[in-house]
Amino acid sequence: MTGGVPPRGFPDAEFDRRVTAAQVLMDERGIDALLVCTEPEVRYFTGFFTPFWQSPTRPWFVVVPPTGRPIAVVPGIGEETMGETWVEDIRTWPAPRPDDDGITLLSQTLVEVAGRMGRIGLPMGHETHLRMPLSDYDTLRRSLDGAAFVDATSIVRDLRMTKSELEIAKMRHICEIVSCAFEGIPGLLAVGMTEREAFAAFKVDLLRRGADDVPYLVGATGPGFSNVIKQPDDRVIERGDLLMFDTGSVFDGYSSDFDRYYAFDEADEAARRAYETVWEATEAGLSVLRPGTTTSDLWAAMAEVLSQGGSLGNPVGRLGHGLGMQVTEWPSNSQDDGTVITDGMVLTLEPGLTWEPGKMMLHEENVVVRADGPELLSRRAPAEIPIIG
Amino acid sequence: MTGGVPPRGFPDAEFDRRVTAAQVLMDERGIDALLVCTEPEVRYFTGFFTPFWQSPTRPWFVVVPPTGRPIAVVPGIGEETMGETWVEDIRTWPAPRPDDDGITLLSQTLVEVAGRMGRIGLPMGHETHLRMPLSDYDTLRRSLDGAAFVDATSIVRDLRMTKSELEIAKMRHICEIVSCAFEGIPGLLAVGMTEREAFAAFKVDLLRRGADDVPYLVGATGPGFSNVIKQPDDRVIERGDLLMFDTGSVFDGYSSDFDRYYAFDEADEAARRAYETVWEATEAGLSVLRPGTTTSDLWAAMAEVLSQGGSLGNPVGRLGHGLGMQVTEWPSNSQDDGTVITDGMVLTLEPGLTWEPGKMMLHEENVVVRADGPELLSRRAPAEIPIIG
Repeated sequence: MTGGVPPRGFPDAEFDRRVTAAQVLMDERGIDALLVCTEPEVRYFTGFFTPFWQSPTRPWFVVVPPTGRPIAVVPGIGEETMGETWVEDIRTWPAPRPDDDGITLLSQTLVEVAGRMGRIGLPMGHETHLRMPLSDYDTLRRSLDGAAFVDATSIVRDLRMTKSELEIAKMRHICEIVSCAFEGIPGLLAVGMTEREAFAAFKVDLLRRGADDVPYLVGATGPGFSNVIKQPDDRVIERGDLLMFDTGSVFDGYSSDFDRYYAFDEADEAARRAYETVWEATEAGLSVLRPGTTTSDLWAAMAEVLSQGGSLGNPVGRLGHGLGMQVTEWPSNSQDDGTVITDGMVLTLEPGLTWEPGKMMLHEENVVVRADGPELLSRRAPAEIPIIG
Repeated sequence: MTGGVPPRGFPDAEFDRRVTAAQVLMDERGIDALLVCTEPEVRYFTGFFTPFWQSPTRPWFVVVPPTGRPIAVVPGIGEETMGETWVEDIRTWPAPRPDDDGITLLSQTLVEVAGRMGRIGLPMGHETHLRMPLSDYDTLRRSLDGAAFVDATSIVRDLRMTKSELEIAKMRHICEIVSCAFEGIPGLLAVGMTEREAFAAFKVDLLRRGADDVPYLVGATGPGFSNVIKQPDDRVIERGDLLMFDTGSVFDGYSSDFDRYYAFDEADEAARRAYETVWEATEAGLSVLRPGTTTSDLWAAMAEVLSQGGSLGNPVGRLGHGLGMQVTEWPSNSQDDGTVITDGMVLTLEPGLTWEPGKMMLHEENVVVRADGPELLSRRAPAEIPIIG
C-alpha cells in the first residue's frame, strides 16, 4: 500500500465547487431550482453520509438554489447529521408522517426558491429514480401553482462523471486494499472449502485490510460458469475449478469495482485462452483510453479483441462503466453510448466473453483518465490466470 | 445459539402462498395486474436475490398476473439468477439500453396480462418508491392504451407485514447472532480505542459469528449523544463514556434491527436512570403487545413510561416499526398509525428519550407477535446498563 489512508470527508470548498458548477449548468439550462432525493446526489451536494438510507420509511430532499448553499428538507432524525455538513439552512418535519411526509415543507421551499412559475430540475433519466412515494410526488406537483418539474439528469450526470482528486484518492485507496486482498487469495482459500466459506473469508479479509464495508460481493466456482452476479452457495471447491470474485468494496463512501479469476491447481487450455483473450481486450481498451475518446470507441477496441478471440456472446450489455460513490455510474462503455471521455473520469474496463456455452470470462480494471492516458487504480491483473495450490 | 442454521432460500410453496394471497387481494380490489420494481417486492414474489441491485443502471420488473406464477421482465444479465427461482416466464432485453430500457417489453407484458382497459396495481404510497427512471414511467403510462396504474401499496404492505415461520426462523437466527455479539462486546472493546476501531472490530465479529453481512451499523460514544444515526469517527473512547451500537445485520436476506448501550468503567446516575426508564418502557410495550392491539396502543404504553421518566423529547418520530427483508418496514409504532397488530408480525419496540439536552437513550428489541403475546427474537437487554472494564 502506498500513500497512507486519505482524510475522511471533504473540505467545504469541495462542496462549494460542486454546487457552483451545478448552478452554472442550471443557469445555462434555465433551471431555477434543482431537487435531488437519492443518496448519492444528496451526499454529493451536502456531504450527508449515513447508512440510514437503507430504511425506506423516510424521504430526504435537498434543493440547490440559483446561488448559495443547498437547502436540506429532511426528517428530524437526520437534523444532527445534516447539521455537521456545510449546509446551513436545514428544515425538518417529524417523520414518519404519512399524511404529509415533508411535502408541504418541500413545496414551500421549492416555490420560495424557484418562484411560482419556476422550472424545477429533477433527475428523471437513465440511471436515476425518484426516492419518494409516487403519490407524494403527484401531490407535490399539484401544489406548486405553476412551477413545473423538468428533467435535470444531465446536470448531475455531467458533474458526477468527472471526479476531483480528493474523490480519486479515496477510490485509489479502496482499490489498493482490494488489490492486496486479491493477491492474498491463494493464501486464504483452498480446495475443500464451500463457496460460502470462501466468500466469508474474503469479506473478513477485506475489512481487516481497511475496507469500511463490502456491500457488493458476487462470485462463482466450478469448471466454468456464466452467472456473473451470483451469490455463494454450499458448493465445495474442487481441484481444477475456476473461481471468480467481483467486489465493490468501499472506503469513505467511494467504491472499487473489479474482479479476479483464479484456478485451483490447474486450468484447462480453453479457460487459459479465454483468460488471455479478455486480458488482451483490457490492454486494447487501455491503449485507446484518453480524453477525447468516446465510450463507444473504447467499447469497439475491446469488442474487436473479444470477437477475434471467438466470443460466443456477453449478457452484460456493456464493457465497463463509470465508478464513484456507486458501484456503477454513468457512462456505459457500450456500442451506442458515445460519451466523450474527459480528464478525471473514473471508469471500469470490463471486457467479457462466453468461451463455451455456459462458461463466461469477465475481467475488470478500474482506471482514472488523465491527459496522457489511463492511470490504473486497480493493480493490473496477472497476464496468465493465477493458480491456487 | 439454539436450533442451528436455518435452510437458505424458500421452497416454491412459500412463493406460491405469497403470490396466491396477492391474487386474492388483487381480485378483491379490482386489480388486473400487479407491477413491482423494488428489491424487496421482487424478492418477495420471486426469490430473486442478489446485491446487484446496488447498481442503479438497470431497472427490474415483475408482473403478478391474476392467476399463476409471476412474470419477470429483466435485463439479460439477470436471466440466469432469475432462472434459478420458481419463475418460469422470464422476458429479457439487452440492458442498458437507455432509449428503451425494457419499457416496450414491459408495456406489452402489462397489456397482455391486464388487458387494454385494465387496472395495473403499483405501490405508490408510504414507504414505497418507483425504482425506474421517472421519464421511462411516463413513457410506459402513455404506451398502455387505456390501461392505467392505481396504487397497490396496501397489497404489498398487508402481505409483507405478516411473516411466515420460514421468514421468522431467518430473523431469529440473525437476532441470535447479534445478541451473542452484543454480549461479547465487553471482551472486544476497551478504553483507548477509536470509534472507528470499535466499529470495525464489531463488524468483523458479527461476520465471524455467522452474519452474512452488516449493512447497517451506526453508533456513538461519549458522555452522552443525541445522534442515533451516526457514523464512526476518530474519537478515542474514554473512561466514563457511554457506547451505543445499533445494527441491522442480515442472514439470508432478513434483517435484525436492535441496539445496545454500554458504559466504560462507570455510568453516572442520570445515564443509569435514563437506561432504566427506557428499559421499563420496553417492558410496558411488551406487556400490551398481542394480536388486536394497535400500533398506537403500543406507542401509548411506551410513551407513558417515557413521559413519566422525564423525557425531553425524541426526534425519531416513532417508537419502533416492522422488520423483515428491510431494516425498517411497515407499520410504525406511532401515535396516529393505528395498524391492528396480528399474529406473525415482526416488530421492533424502540422507546427513546432525551434525558438531558444533547443526550438521548434509545433501546430496541425485536419480537414476533404470537397469539398469546410477544416472542423475543433479540435476547432481552440487561435491566441495568452493562459496564465494560
